[in-house]
Amino acid sequence: MPRYSCLIEYDGRPYKGFQAQENLPTVQGVIEDAIFKFSGERLRLTAAGRTDTGVHATGQVVTFDLQKTYRGEVVANALNAHLMGEPVSVLEAAQVPDDFSARFSATGRMYLYRILNRRAPPALDLGRVWHVKKPLDAQAMHAAAKALIGLHDFTTFRHVECQAKSPIKTLDIARVARVGDEVHLVFASRSFLHRQVRSMVGTLAEVGIGRWDIDDVKAALEAKDRTACGQVAPPEGLFLTHVTYEAEPDFESRCSI
Amino acid sequence: MPRYSCLIEYDGRPYKGFQAQENLPTVQGVIEDAIFKFSGERLRLTAAGRTDTGVHATGQVVTFDLQKTYRGEVVANALNAHLMGEPVSVLEAAQVPDDFSARFSATGRMYLYRILNRRAPPALDLGRVWHVKKPLDAQAMHAAAKALIGLHDFTTFRHVECQAKSPIKTLDIARVARVGDEVHLVFASRSFLHRQVRSMVGTLAEVGIGRWDIDDVKAALEAKDRTACGQVAPPEGLFLTHVTYEAEPDFESRCSI
Repeated sequence: MPRYSCLIEYDGRPYKGFQAQENLPTVQGVIEDAIFKFSGERLRLTAAGRTDTGVHATGQVVTFDLQKTYRGEVVANALNAHLMGEPVSVLEAAQVPDDFSARFSATGRMYLYRILNRRAPPALDLGRVWHVKKPLDAQAMHAAAKALIGLHDFTTFRHVECQAKSPIKTLDIARVARVGDEVHLVFASRSFLHRQVRSMVGTLAEVGIGRWDIDDVKAALEAKDRTACGQVAPPEGLFLTHVTYEAEPDFESRCSI
Repeated sequence: MPRYSCLIEYDGRPYKGFQAQENLPTVQGVIEDAIFKFSGERLRLTAAGRTDTGVHATGQVVTFDLQKTYRGEVVANALNAHLMGEPVSVLEAAQVPDDFSARFSATGRMYLYRILNRRAPPALDLGRVWHVKKPLDAQAMHAAAKALIGLHDFTTFRHVECQAKSPIKTLDIARVARVGDEVHLVFASRSFLHRQVRSMVGTLAEVGIGRWDIDDVKAALEAKDRTACGQVAPPEGLFLTHVTYEAEPDFESRCSI
């Protein structure tokens, strides 16, 4: 059976996360419904990242098998037609080798986290930024983020229900920059633990408001203890922006800050 | 009575335009309700621009009088607290001279129009961009936009129900540029006719897809005839971004493209 890969953009707000759940609206659910309406086939797709409730994507990747062979453009257009009314869009679709998996072939994931850092609440970006009223020192956050780069036991930044076998991961990129009245954080790694990005963002925000310094972040990391984590940032500022499949992922060229 | 001016951001989607209407949700209506909840005063505010249904703002300005004197920050925070749940946000508030009017003191307005120019429909920016699938030639659009700059009779680009006394206006800035997979258009003038920006955008889009050339745009302008206008672009891509009050508005420094 031919296998297809799709690049997907979605607004996470209306969904109970990516992963399909019985009788609940999920991103996976609406995409699988669109595939069914297009092909008549009920199937389970595979995704690069299972984003949480309220988390968005501009570059999620999914793979699935269909009985027939179609041109990628036909798959993309048909799925978008059946996704009408849902804030989920197929940016690209293509046939891929049978052994290609959106999840297991991935060599890197990149996330953007957006903080709206002003007194006034968001209007146009409501649900797509974390609103932090206190002025954040983005340079101090950037310096502290550097302490997280490299091979570490990230137990501190891991949800207690995380199912990954090991808490040891290599963080390749961790950057913070001010962009107008927003503070953007970008992280890249082969893979992330559950809630790792939001836990790191929440902790770096403690530095941004001056409650923590860089040594507090280092101590939290070294504690390897979930209770040593700062606050956990809310889902609405988080975007899965890129999934890479090269042997040596070029995160640098994809980093917006 | 002390007069206040507020800088306002809003998402136009849930509202039947800016201007208050009996029993319909409007931006003016929700702001006046918030003012009432804060001050106990039922009043009519004055706005720099009465945006249509579905049109957004990042820089709308409104003025109103209250019985008491408050610090601007108090007004902004109180209104935002009462606007909770509405995608309307008070970015700044300040007391202003009694003769200052958001509308009549304004010396310039600037609008941004966003076109999402890709095959796939918008997901994250649904309702905040005009989706045009056919590839647009932004350079050709920019060249044609130049033909609209200056003092002209803009009858062609004016809604038949426009109530302005004269169709003669001076267009100071008309620019088009590609920004990633979007095409942005920026227009600035002392004031605009009803539907003028959306009429100019729709007409320039005809140039972008190659159906019209620059001479067709010039001919449409010179026709001074509403039926000579190209298509009218939909409201969802339009943003009122700046209102100026200087004697000589510095549009250049506010132009994002």
